[in-house]
Amino acid sequence: MIVTCVHVNVIPSGVEEFIRLTRDNHNASILEPGNLRFDLLQMEDDSCHFMIYEAYESQEASDLHKTTLHYIKWRDAVKDLMAETRQGIRYRIVEPSSRSQW
Amino acid sequence: MIVTCVHVNVIPSGVEEFIRLTRDNHNASILEPGNLRFDLLQMEDDSCHFMIYEAYESQEASDLHKTTLHYIKWRDAVKDLMAETRQGIRYRIVEPSSRSQW
Repeated sequence: MIVTCVHVNVIPSGVEEFIRLTRDNHNASILEPGNLRFDLLQMEDDSCHFMIYEAYESQEASDLHKTTLHYIKWRDAVKDLMAETRQGIRYRIVEPSSRSQW
Repeated sequence: MIVTCVHVNVIPSGVEEFIRLTRDNHNASILEPGNLRFDLLQMEDDSCHFMIYEAYESQEASDLHKTTLHYIKWRDAVKDLMAETRQGIRYRIVEPSSRSQW
């Protein structure tokens, strides 16, 4: 199991549209068989900063996400809404160590 | 519902002990009535960097966590294992917006 935290800085005029597009991505991503979580969070101190908390049961499942139509649609649609290149940070899961707790 | 991402840089000699202590904290924290998640993650590119993904159903539940014996025990025990002051970043939850998906 792996987690990727994707940090996105959005231009102020794009915040509402970014939330709408990422909600669509969330709704489709959580239906992927290998998806464990796809949480969309907005920083309290900076409403233009978002984090997507993506957990997948394997590297293969995470890779597969990037081939889905909903991901490609989101990637292309948010391109002009980002203030800078988004950053993905990869983590190894220590706890919960059991698949059933995800 | 709120999420706090706690970033901790641990001294290299303290990594094993930090994981042991934070596992204990995880096991007790997920039993708190207002806790939604308490994930412990280790950065792939830097095994001394950890993130704790803490989700609570309310600010009150999050505040209550800091009064528990298991939190206080963890806080005191990890003090000398940290390379620098840990940082908590607070997020508003956009999705999943339903309590039942946490």
